[in-house]
Amino acid sequence: MSLPQVSLRISYESPITLTDMPKSVTAFAPASVSNVSCGFDIMGFALERPGDTVTVRYCDSPGVRIAALRGETNGLPLDASLNTAVAPVAALLRDFGAGIGVEIELVKGLPPGSGIGSSAASAVAAAVAANALFGAGLQPRELLKYAIEGERIASGSVHADNVAPSLLGGYVLIRGYEPIDIVQIPVPDGLWCTVVCPDVVIRTKEARDILPAAISLRDVVAQTGNAAGLVAGLIMGDFGLVGRSLHDVVAEPARAKLIPGFDRLKSEALDAGALGSGISGSGPALFALSTTREVAEHVGDRLTEVLTSRGVRSLKYVSTISKIGAHIVEEAP
Amino acid sequence: MSLPQVSLRISYESPITLTDMPKSVTAFAPASVSNVSCGFDIMGFALERPGDTVTVRYCDSPGVRIAALRGETNGLPLDASLNTAVAPVAALLRDFGAGIGVEIELVKGLPPGSGIGSSAASAVAAAVAANALFGAGLQPRELLKYAIEGERIASGSVHADNVAPSLLGGYVLIRGYEPIDIVQIPVPDGLWCTVVCPDVVIRTKEARDILPAAISLRDVVAQTGNAAGLVAGLIMGDFGLVGRSLHDVVAEPARAKLIPGFDRLKSEALDAGALGSGISGSGPALFALSTTREVAEHVGDRLTEVLTSRGVRSLKYVSTISKIGAHIVEEAP
Repeated sequence: MSLPQVSLRISYESPITLTDMPKSVTAFAPASVSNVSCGFDIMGFALERPGDTVTVRYCDSPGVRIAALRGETNGLPLDASLNTAVAPVAALLRDFGAGIGVEIELVKGLPPGSGIGSSAASAVAAAVAANALFGAGLQPRELLKYAIEGERIASGSVHADNVAPSLLGGYVLIRGYEPIDIVQIPVPDGLWCTVVCPDVVIRTKEARDILPAAISLRDVVAQTGNAAGLVAGLIMGDFGLVGRSLHDVVAEPARAKLIPGFDRLKSEALDAGALGSGISGSGPALFALSTTREVAEHVGDRLTEVLTSRGVRSLKYVSTISKIGAHIVEEAP
Repeated sequence: MSLPQVSLRISYESPITLTDMPKSVTAFAPASVSNVSCGFDIMGFALERPGDTVTVRYCDSPGVRIAALRGETNGLPLDASLNTAVAPVAALLRDFGAGIGVEIELVKGLPPGSGIGSSAASAVAAAVAANALFGAGLQPRELLKYAIEGERIASGSVHADNVAPSLLGGYVLIRGYEPIDIVQIPVPDGLWCTVVCPDVVIRTKEARDILPAAISLRDVVAQTGNAAGLVAGLIMGDFGLVGRSLHDVVAEPARAKLIPGFDRLKSEALDAGALGSGISGSGPALFALSTTREVAEHVGDRLTEVLTSRGVRSLKYVSTISKIGAHIVEEAP
């Protein structure tokens, strides 16, 4: 194995030598809830778990290849070039390790196409691992553009509302896209998230195509009021305001029909004590926010029961909003 | 003068007797900047000055009449029933003083039709004065619906984005209208507002009719991102974020053409050091936010110069965001 390009990047002042550098890095990136009801395309937050784990290691043949896919791989594209873990590594390789070769091992901890940022988690974990492996030394915010490369492959357009929270952790507002303006919103303690992923397939593109092309002025006023209210409620720790703000008049009315029993699921979540709920990402997952773990578990149980009664299997996750984003799990020499 | 209805409202436990009650109350309500760029129909904040001063006093003939109009009365409707100070007093009279008669003296400190909440300031000052005069004892938030009666007359629809900040002070988010949900947003110290009112006439209805009926999904995302960013910036005291968020893609593109030299005025405000600027209310006033009084004054001077060079007279105000809303100035026995 030869690493001539890497050695060129080590300056004389650097304490790093080739022997210090890992030959394999493993990173974890969490699932995330994006859109968050009224925050269509502008908000997302990281869960503690589940998440994807990616190992990037040097290999002899130049370029990037997938060595192994494990875990929740059902529904992943068979074409490796469409795997969202590949593009960020290829982009980092181009900028920081041209000429060398790496292979990727991806352990999917969250199911693809579920609406909790599966493609983003793979892309983010891969970017974080490759950053460390190549000694690129990029800060998380600098890694964003590389991780977004993966999302571009998954959805055909640039969205950061899963990538940013998975990478940075916490609750993220994407104030604007031109240029991208990421704002980390302080999250109050004591906020719990329930996610239920029904085992139905919704393609991201399909969920986009169903959206209205235009929104009435009245609905724009409602949506901006709720989006501003949600952010204010989070920063001020006003859970009542958070709950009152969780209404989406833009995407939810169109996308609800893609999720079996959506209205019933929403009302069950509220009945079970949630502050509010909505579609996670472009679905089919639903999220709900609650103020205790017990309520969050109860909400999850109720939603699972409703889905089961309709013959729909589902996965349930209960988690706080994680303050830690993607991180290195292991560096092997 | 007889006050039989009032005496009926004094309970046996009350320490108040008729002789304690004022026969005349004067209240002040400040001007306000509503919409605040990206906060179309959902945000507003109070200035320290200018404002309207309203005296409400008992008189012998039942009902409500206007005894005097003074100050900036140019442009006020000649029909007293259209004066926005009358409706809130009439509504309070109906609920708390039926059968008695009052007269109103209104001193306009801010010009009607300027875009800084002139009709709201009159309505709010009148409501606050009448509340005290009738011994109704309503809290400011309870007074909101009475003050809104005045705005209904002025604009034909219910908007609270001037009434709420003028009544409550500070920076107000109207999270929703059904039911009305007023959120007081903490304002960081050190934020200064410049308001320049060009002497051109824009009717509120005309400014409404020019608005687009529907907004593209892309613009909805931009508007919600900015609205959430503005609120986050204010609460977190992040002035950079406040400035980056001050973009309106909903109302401003349509209304800019009603204001002579609008694009030039905006770029001058930024050149002069403002964080950002936009149309106040439905115009023609412009507001700009800055981080020092000196910059705010400088911004005002530059905007005034631009307007003067186009032959347009204007009024200039520089103020912090007032933390105090409408208040009693005098109670006369």
